[in-house]
Amino acid sequence: MSKGLDVPDPSSNKIRAAILGASGYVGAELVRMLSRHPNVEIVVLTAERRAGQPLAAVYPHLGDLGMPDLLKIDQVEWGGLDVDVVFCALPHGTTQLVVAGLLHATHHSLVDELVADNTEDAISALPKSVKVVDLSADFRLRDLEVYREWYGHAHQAKDLQKNAVYGLTEFSREAIAGALLIACPGCYPTTTLLPLVPLLEKALILPYDIIVDAKSGVSGAGRSEKEANLYAEVAEGMHPYGLGGHRHAPEIDQELSVAANEPVTISFTPHLAPMSRGILATTYVKLADGATARDLHAALVDRFESEAFIRVLDQGAVPATRHVRGSNFCQMNVFQDRVPGRAILVSATDNLIKGASGQAIQNMNVAFGFAETVGLEARPLFP
Amino acid sequence: MSKGLDVPDPSSNKIRAAILGASGYVGAELVRMLSRHPNVEIVVLTAERRAGQPLAAVYPHLGDLGMPDLLKIDQVEWGGLDVDVVFCALPHGTTQLVVAGLLHATHHSLVDELVADNTEDAISALPKSVKVVDLSADFRLRDLEVYREWYGHAHQAKDLQKNAVYGLTEFSREAIAGALLIACPGCYPTTTLLPLVPLLEKALILPYDIIVDAKSGVSGAGRSEKEANLYAEVAEGMHPYGLGGHRHAPEIDQELSVAANEPVTISFTPHLAPMSRGILATTYVKLADGATARDLHAALVDRFESEAFIRVLDQGAVPATRHVRGSNFCQMNVFQDRVPGRAILVSATDNLIKGASGQAIQNMNVAFGFAETVGLEARPLFP
Amino acid sequence: MSKGLDVPDPSSNKIRAAILGASGYVGAELVRMLSRHPNVEIVVLTAERRAGQPLAAVYPHLGDLGMPDLLKIDQVEWGGLDVDVVFCALPHGTTQLVVAGLLHATHHSLVDELVADNTEDAISALPKSVKVVDLSADFRLRDLEVYREWYGHAHQAKDLQKNAVYGLTEFSREAIAGALLIACPGCYPTTTLLPLVPLLEKALILPYDIIVDAKSGVSGAGRSEKEANLYAEVAEGMHPYGLGGHRHAPEIDQELSVAANEPVTISFTPHLAPMSRGILATTYVKLADGATARDLHAALVDRFESEAFIRVLDQGAVPATRHVRGSNFCQMNVFQDRVPGRAILVSATDNLIKGASGQAIQNMNVAFGFAETVGLEARPLFP
Amino acid sequence: MSKGLDVPDPSSNKIRAAILGASGYVGAELVRMLSRHPNVEIVVLTAERRAGQPLAAVYPHLGDLGMPDLLKIDQVEWGGLDVDVVFCALPHGTTQLVVAGLLHATHHSLVDELVADNTEDAISALPKSVKVVDLSADFRLRDLEVYREWYGHAHQAKDLQKNAVYGLTEFSREAIAGALLIACPGCYPTTTLLPLVPLLEKALILPYDIIVDAKSGVSGAGRSEKEANLYAEVAEGMHPYGLGGHRHAPEIDQELSVAANEPVTISFTPHLAPMSRGILATTYVKLADGATARDLHAALVDRFESEAFIRVLDQGAVPATRHVRGSNFCQMNVFQDRVPGRAILVSATDNLIKGASGQAIQNMNVAFGFAETVGLEARPLFP
Repeated sequence: MSKGLDVPDPSSNKIRAAILGASGYVGAELVRMLSRHPNVEIVVLTAERRAGQPLAAVYPHLGDLGMPDLLKIDQVEWGGLDVDVVFCALPHGTTQLVVAGLLHATHHSLVDELVADNTEDAISALPKSVKVVDLSADFRLRDLEVYREWYGHAHQAKDLQKNAVYGLTEFSREAIAGALLIACPGCYPTTTLLPLVPLLEKALILPYDIIVDAKSGVSGAGRSEKEANLYAEVAEGMHPYGLGGHRHAPEIDQELSVAANEPVTISFTPHLAPMSRGILATTYVKLADGATARDLHAALVDRFESEAFIRVLDQGAVPATRHVRGSNFCQMNVFQDRVPGRAILVSATDNLIKGASGQAIQNMNVAFGFAETVGLEARPLFP
Repeated sequence: MSKGLDVPDPSSNKIRAAILGASGYVGAELVRMLSRHPNVEIVVLTAERRAGQPLAAVYPHLGDLGMPDLLKIDQVEWGGLDVDVVFCALPHGTTQLVVAGLLHATHHSLVDELVADNTEDAISALPKSVKVVDLSADFRLRDLEVYREWYGHAHQAKDLQKNAVYGLTEFSREAIAGALLIACPGCYPTTTLLPLVPLLEKALILPYDIIVDAKSGVSGAGRSEKEANLYAEVAEGMHPYGLGGHRHAPEIDQELSVAANEPVTISFTPHLAPMSRGILATTYVKLADGATARDLHAALVDRFESEAFIRVLDQGAVPATRHVRGSNFCQMNVFQDRVPGRAILVSATDNLIKGASGQAIQNMNVAFGFAETVGLEARPLFP
Repeated sequence: MSKGLDVPDPSSNKIRAAILGASGYVGAELVRMLSRHPNVEIVVLTAERRAGQPLAAVYPHLGDLGMPDLLKIDQVEWGGLDVDVVFCALPHGTTQLVVAGLLHATHHSLVDELVADNTEDAISALPKSVKVVDLSADFRLRDLEVYREWYGHAHQAKDLQKNAVYGLTEFSREAIAGALLIACPGCYPTTTLLPLVPLLEKALILPYDIIVDAKSGVSGAGRSEKEANLYAEVAEGMHPYGLGGHRHAPEIDQELSVAANEPVTISFTPHLAPMSRGILATTYVKLADGATARDLHAALVDRFESEAFIRVLDQGAVPATRHVRGSNFCQMNVFQDRVPGRAILVSATDNLIKGASGQAIQNMNVAFGFAETVGLEARPLFP
Repeated sequence: MSKGLDVPDPSSNKIRAAILGASGYVGAELVRMLSRHPNVEIVVLTAERRAGQPLAAVYPHLGDLGMPDLLKIDQVEWGGLDVDVVFCALPHGTTQLVVAGLLHATHHSLVDELVADNTEDAISALPKSVKVVDLSADFRLRDLEVYREWYGHAHQAKDLQKNAVYGLTEFSREAIAGALLIACPGCYPTTTLLPLVPLLEKALILPYDIIVDAKSGVSGAGRSEKEANLYAEVAEGMHPYGLGGHRHAPEIDQELSVAANEPVTISFTPHLAPMSRGILATTYVKLADGATARDLHAALVDRFESEAFIRVLDQGAVPATRHVRGSNFCQMNVFQDRVPGRAILVSATDNLIKGASGQAIQNMNVAFGFAETVGLEARPLFP
């Protein structure tokens, strides 16, 4: 008997979730939030390098949640787990094979031949209704040539890619509700796209000369042991990176081009800021003929006023990452530039929540018919 | 018709709360947590200097909670508000008069003559069943001479003081349940007392030569505009303060003396650490004859195993402030010192939560018969 | 007998310096660096609010330099001090009257009538050769209407203004050498102008659509006791400020317009970053027809290769504030944008040194004929 | 013809220095400070993992000093280099073999047989007068059994160890001046010993019940890529480590036992603080019979008043790491505890300078007869 969206298990009234990649920061945030979600039970946690350890050894702050110990992905015995949803918080590039494997047995028509050969038997026990919420970049780019260019290798799950839905929740609820595979946007694209898409759709700004100067906290680089992310390397300083070409730029272009109905190429420069969490995007745009910053503000208010997580601030109020930290909110506002014909958009999110795990849960809520805000009610933690 | 502990308003099933001093960090945390408490409705917020402003102007991260605008205390029209509980997050020294005023009309026998004259009419409309949860130092010291010595003036609400209950929840539930006025411990005493009290009660450590080296985040100093708390003065450095005599030491002595059943005088040295939140107490103790660090650990496990918010870590695991940040938890552990006959206690809390607003809500839950953990379920936010 | 540039006191071979406003961060940095300058002796320190205190009470890290105690400006007995140079590190708006007063007795033709009346007697003892190095904004704007617009009041020392030299050292040595009054650029303009001016002069970039996204450490706001600068308000977060109109923008416009030989209006958005020191400017420009990012890089290398404090990094290397902290260096580089026809300039300085006190000393060195790098040799302090 | 202490090369008047381990933070600080030392020329830099790279690739802030590229140790052709001094900033445990190898050819009687076999030919060209300044822990412990216990293996250069001088400069100038091998103390021992040694020597405090609670910046852990040192793991939190047994404790015991003329065992607990630099030691002591905190202060003033780098603050003034950052200073003070018969010592250093590279240079100055402060004049960088 299948479980899932329409027929939740009456005995528990909960869907059953697996989190792949639970030892990263995004995985930890998924655990933290889903452990209190009234409609979710976490039944599997994987972490390749930390497999065999209890969660307390990896994340002491989550040590008392009664979670299962960490496994390697290939140690999971999917049969009998009755998993309804799989969250993939795996490194870019490795996800596509894992997801293909997960879905092969039940949706083999979607899985490429080659991949299928490698993955067939592993997980044939997965129920057909399982949904995958992916937090990597693997299924975000619809144009597989663009994928190849930026990630350096051919996509290995092309048919799956075609069926993935780009999960910027506020813009794609209908598709998300019916999706098998939801590709959650990156933290930079989420923060950048939220104010830009409605303004391009309404043609209130020009679709060129868009400049995004983004500032990210260090957790965006994950928990990997790199010299560049050491405390003494990061504290008390700032610098840009990925100059002239960051992997998130084509993802932003893709969505802006849809909104503008013409090809858009943005200038996008990320910066590393000495903070653990938070993304601030300062976006410089040119106003369409006749439009004012006030018009832009009104359009954003209008577009987002019924959204639970989007806060278009009152005119003059300034978004700040510390005012969304620990929450699924996005703050935004519009300012008239001193240069005539220009406006400045400012948007802020918590990169680990609205930029990753929170939006993933929001998408899960949509996909399984729960209230969209369930499990995501936490207010920002300040100071 | 009166409301309160035993007779909650059936129409709302919520008690009605006033928060005095809502513009400080502790006040803001009370708002943040109580706004999601299923049994509480916030009906009054006061803030002297910011009176007249919406909460969004003072705390943008709480701007969308639908809270009442800020008032001065003497602008509050208590009649008709049907307040059940008043949280006082006011500066030390000013609280005693305010609380005396609040309680005078209904409990005048407890309020000193002099104070009564000043406050009589102001709040006669407060229901008799109102309870006061005070977060200042004003009612923590039972010995009024000690109060005078450390605060530089005679206590002005002596009769009230006698009826105040020292609200370190884990040790005083019965008294808190019946209290009119709960004096919540300071952040340093909370963090220090939690591991020490059971060990002294069981005579596992000696009641002298106890040395507490405590490290606090900057929010412990409040939101006041002082040069010493500027970012550029605090970041990337450490220093002790209050050397040889900090106001929290006699509060700690008071409770330790009860536990040891003899006078205890600790050495207590606080330090300012470059972080917004968190208290870490490293406490150096001498073992009682025959006792081992392992015995101490066992005693703490035994004492706290049924406590929801106290986490005695497995032997060898190290408490850290970042693993309790944003939560009402206290982590603690015991370590054998390299010097024979000595042990080291380490305890960590979030100074604004278990050290202030969280414990206040915990006390309110006890006082009104709610489940003790309601509204305090949030897990630590890391990183 | 006069002292100064041409006739240094042979007994000491040192010029004699007064620092007005020594209790601010910029003043402290002037003390720190000038105290080791082989050609300078500090003879007066003023600080209005901290007058009467020893420097150790205000800046413990400078407590052993044998400096004079702090005075109010009007307590200084200029006669007999034989001051050669006065550094003004005073708040914007108050400086012009002080400087006018300082210079009136000796250069009264330059001082406006009204001001003269107020200041005449105070400092008639100042030698004629005294030079003023001003670090405020008071004398930076040549167009007094622009000054009035941004600072809210008419300039009060108009004749002096006409004689002030804008002291971005690398571009104005000759004028600085002969100047009576040197107006040191602000930290934002210094960091922004250094890469832009040569590129506009050579017409390698277009003089419009220039967007400067700047990030500053908190010390740029001075040591004033403001809620917005508290540790707990600043740490672990980012936000922009001065949106659509910051006082430094017209100062930048002024110098860029000279370089471009036509009016330039930039878009300029400063951000507060959680760090004590440092300014990072990310500047988005359009390439002139036929120009490439490589051309821009070559032009900067060519322009600055003989400059002691300007470091045009090798292609691909990224400037970072932490790599100039504690030094008078400016790091810069040019990057090809992913959008054709665009380039990105990145420049970094220590706002308190090259952006303030260091450049002031550099200007003093030029003005008095010392080697330009004397006293400024310190390498960056990292980590 | 040999060069060195007594016969500096008249053509350059500089000694020639090699820095082994230049890619660590301590190595970088040695480069930064020695590059401006008037009596030193850096002729060799080694770094095993980064060998072949220019220093700019490893430390961009030092990229313009004209330093030699990084080599592996065994790539150095010592012949012809005429090296006078070798700074070893290598990992603990690896140093002893390297130093033994360096010194074997010229002082083979000091080098153990086994080691000699491995190293004989490599560096026979080293001049006899070469001196080694070692910054590792390898030669600090005189008792080789203690070494074996804490470092897990037998010492491999026992004869050399006997000839090493423990280089806490202020206490051992004479021995340092004549030493072949100077073992520089660790950052924790330096900061702890400076105030304790004189007080024990004068028997003003008791030699037992000494408790040291130390707080260190993250750079003390070096530049190694460990999860525990990532920004997001360290920022905004505190925790102790090495509880009950840190390798620096026996080193401190060793020196205190000499000072007290009886065995001393301290309680020593280090903490990781969210800052890049700085060590703060808060030391709890018992006063000898009849002694007062004032006596202790007087004794420290007396002992250190002629020392260039030790600052015994005025009574009541509080040492802070930020007031020594970037300098070779140690600030200290004494406070009466509220517990009768107790005092609290507070001392602060920059762990990378007085705790490592600065003290090493100070020792070199002593060893080569230079003025002790040469190259170390920099004042603290604050904020």
